[in-house]
Amino acid sequence: MARYSPSVQNLISKLGSLPGIGGRSAQKLAFFILSMSSEEADALTGAIVEARKLTKKCGCCQNFTDSDPCPICSDPKRDRSIVCVVETPRDVSAFERMHEYNGLYHVLHGVYDPVKNTNMNDITLTELFGRLTEHPEIKEVIVATNQTAEGNATALYIARLLGPSGIKVTRLASGLPMGSDIVFADDLTLASALKGRKQIGN
Amino acid sequence: MARYSPSVQNLISKLGSLPGIGGRSAQKLAFFILSMSSEEADALTGAIVEARKLTKKCGCCQNFTDSDPCPICSDPKRDRSIVCVVETPRDVSAFERMHEYNGLYHVLHGVYDPVKNTNMNDITLTELFGRLTEHPEIKEVIVATNQTAEGNATALYIARLLGPSGIKVTRLASGLPMGSDIVFADDLTLASALKGRKQIGN
Repeated sequence: MARYSPSVQNLISKLGSLPGIGGRSAQKLAFFILSMSSEEADALTGAIVEARKLTKKCGCCQNFTDSDPCPICSDPKRDRSIVCVVETPRDVSAFERMHEYNGLYHVLHGVYDPVKNTNMNDITLTELFGRLTEHPEIKEVIVATNQTAEGNATALYIARLLGPSGIKVTRLASGLPMGSDIVFADDLTLASALKGRKQIGN
Repeated sequence: MARYSPSVQNLISKLGSLPGIGGRSAQKLAFFILSMSSEEADALTGAIVEARKLTKKCGCCQNFTDSDPCPICSDPKRDRSIVCVVETPRDVSAFERMHEYNGLYHVLHGVYDPVKNTNMNDITLTELFGRLTEHPEIKEVIVATNQTAEGNATALYIARLLGPSGIKVTRLASGLPMGSDIVFADDLTLASALKGRKQIGN
């Protein structure tokens, strides 16, 4: 005998295919969804359908938006000479939360993975290079991909391809997080902090 | 400026209201759902709608099922003299996985919480007592609610109400989990294991 009815099993498997949702969470979510009132369930499925219908990618920065160009790309107060390349829309939100960056963005929707041999078109690299050609006012590209093997590979890949263009390619500094203890730092972070040490005082 | 467009913000908040989904997970899920192909997204919302449409509560044990009575309640090989009372459908699945229990179930869909003063009708207690009256062949009720304050309160509440009926009310043994180290046991578990100690050998 199957543990759950086919429709419940299907719901559990669909929920379990979402990122960060394991088998037990999927079961818990499925039974929660079954226990919801009709209004709550309709609001949930409605929110999915509505967000997918209204949301498109900005033709310029490729971030998700419901107006094209997005509010950031169409903001005249933004510095158009600098583009920060990030992996996901959530990274844009992290930068905006900081209130320290006034340039534009480019969302890759992924990273270049040399092992999987990601294609230029799997992430929005073609759009990035097209954009840099069309907008000669862009002088600097900050590659703010994650500090992972794939994030670093993406940064090197972009730097290599942009080499002849004369556009400055930079990478965010790596090192010890603010407020952190050296004792708890992993070796790679500590090595990177040592390598990037800066002179203080005179 | 809002961090995300209203429809995306709404999707994040609906996902964030699901159990075990925090703010960051909700953002991650929302952008994953936005990145899905139309087929995948339709399969997800379809699974929710379909499972909710096909699934009802079994008129006997109150478990979620797509046939009423459910496969367990309608199985002639089950022992009808014993009913195991659990909090959720997932508990039924845990018991069934064990292949050691052959009686029937009753799913409360919650617990009696003396602090919130849960009503008899908030959980399926009314259905339980009705069922016990209708089926005099039931001789034992195992209260297999969780080993929490609410789970214990529910067990005591059921035991008190069933006192005059002559139906035997039991509770699962509490103690050290199999394969566990005493060093890592919490005080309550250790105290419970000591109190429930059993003679071995002659």
